Amino acid sequence: MDEHLLIQKYFSNIGSAYLAEHNVEVTVGDDASVITSQNKTQLINSLDTSIEGVHFLDSMSPEDIAYRACAVALSDLAACGAVPKWYSLALTLPKINENWLKDFSHGLNKFSDEYRVPLVGGDTTKGPLSITIQVMGETDSGKAILRSNAKKDQLIFVSGMIGNAYLGLNELKDISSSNINILSYLNPKARIELGQELLDIASSAIDISDGLLQDLSLICKASDVGAEIFLDKIPTSVTEKSLELINSGDDYELCFTTDKDKYDKVMNISTMLNIPITSIGKITSSKEVVLYDNNKTRIKFKSGYKHF
Amino acid sequence: MDEHLLIQKYFSNIGSAYLAEHNVEVTVGDDASVITSQNKTQLINSLDTSIEGVHFLDSMSPEDIAYRACAVALSDLAACGAVPKWYSLALTLPKINENWLKDFSHGLNKFSDEYRVPLVGGDTTKGPLSITIQVMGETDSGKAILRSNAKKDQLIFVSGMIGNAYLGLNELKDISSSNINILSYLNPKARIELGQELLDIASSAIDISDGLLQDLSLICKASDVGAEIFLDKIPTSVTEKSLELINSGDDYELCFTTDKDKYDKVMNISTMLNIPITSIGKITSSKEVVLYDNNKTRIKFKSGYKHF
Repeated sequence: MDEHLLIQKYFSNIGSAYLAEHNVEVTVGDDASVITSQNKTQLINSLDTSIEGVHFLDSMSPEDIAYRACAVALSDLAACGAVPKWYSLALTLPKINENWLKDFSHGLNKFSDEYRVPLVGGDTTKGPLSITIQVMGETDSGKAILRSNAKKDQLIFVSGMIGNAYLGLNELKDISSSNINILSYLNPKARIELGQELLDIASSAIDISDGLLQDLSLICKASDVGAEIFLDKIPTSVTEKSLELINSGDDYELCFTTDKDKYDKVMNISTMLNIPITSIGKITSSKEVVLYDNNKTRIKFKSGYKHF
Repeated sequence: MDEHLLIQKYFSNIGSAYLAEHNVEVTVGDDASVITSQNKTQLINSLDTSIEGVHFLDSMSPEDIAYRACAVALSDLAACGAVPKWYSLALTLPKINENWLKDFSHGLNKFSDEYRVPLVGGDTTKGPLSITIQVMGETDSGKAILRSNAKKDQLIFVSGMIGNAYLGLNELKDISSSNINILSYLNPKARIELGQELLDIASSAIDISDGLLQDLSLICKASDVGAEIFLDKIPTSVTEKSLELINSGDDYELCFTTDKDKYDKVMNISTMLNIPITSIGKITSSKEVVLYDNNKTRIKFKSGYKHF
């Protein structure tokens, strides 16, 4: 099978129901994709690579590998409050395996249907398995939520339950275990709806893909502030809140900051979307992230996931 | 060195002189890049992966590897007649080597300066060396040149000299040889200016990255037509026009079609841009690409570069 047949067979029709609503005119199969741009919008672009053994396990199904690679990329748009528009895929494969490709394209279809985004193009190459997903979204002009606007005394919130993906990954590695959290790792959800609700509310936001403490420190760095947070307040689905649990990453929840007087609005959003949102501390002027235990004793911690 | 320091040190400032002219508001360092979209334009998006041993040799300098990966991706925008706007980079590295990264970022800078495009974001991951470049360009609404509009009796042109990259790659593999064509392989030029001149002239275009005959056949397939071309007319820098020479790919020249009465306009563009442009045959209704020798005897050929 040559590259063009492969693309036509497995990638030419993914999410095509959503091409028109995102003004995509030329999709998979030409030199490039062509999309009509809208006036007075901001384009929000992100690129994410998933590598076997680093970002997914070879024991995962191709469907889960595809879905996870896409959701993980989309999570960056959620953190900006963007509406997802379309995505493209650079897929590197050691060899052509039609069963694998068929299952992989099921994962893409599942992702496309869930977030209503079409696959508009990409590249296939031969080499060690690697998946790079480019996602494009948009917000109204000037509305994108950045990392750089957190201010002293603002509240710090997180969505969801922290550490579920860590628990899920451990379950995945130990086939004899229960599978309570496994989907949190295999099929993470990008918090797209939450991001959009936060557009006029959050002063800064990030997705906590590399661990809550590390990613919060990126907000602090970009905003030139610090943070104090409380271990006991961090929402987890198990009783023992270990540092490993809360800071191993892969959760793809949002960490964001707001003025204190927005607390009720945030709780209303939590109720409306049925997503747990928890206040875990506040922004300080200290320029470091400080974690406290119950007795307000400082807990030392290492940073989160290291890419190298 | 952690990922964030690495990004700041080697990737945070590449092509930043061109951020404003392309309306880039948020660049490397946030969750995603933010760009203001323009009214009445078409966005032209492409993604290209370069893999060690497949798309570049490990004997190449990191500067050449970076430059080549970018130029190769940009070539798809040239084929659409797009103005390049910005690009992002997904870089997978086996380990951090600061000398390597420094040299690699020189290559990005060289590319950014040559095409006046900023690097706006991306991802760095650990794994086998792999470079995915996403390029974004634009054209006026409805102007992008596609593969699908070639018509019977239109002329087929190619830019440049076909096979120089093949000769250059052979020189690169044989260190005792002369280096006449080596730059054609190491530092291919994306035919951006030519693409833009062809906007209202070419009915279809493609960059011949996988070999002239194979890529012309993609135009024919997309346009539901055929082609007849003449081996002797194909411009080469050596006398013997072997099939291997003209169909090995990597040339990143443009192959395009126009109405017959545009011939003089095409020749004027050739003179103006100082780029050889040669008519090599015409579009037919036969639905296959036919190659003839001097005596109009048909020459059989295999297709060009196979990705798998």
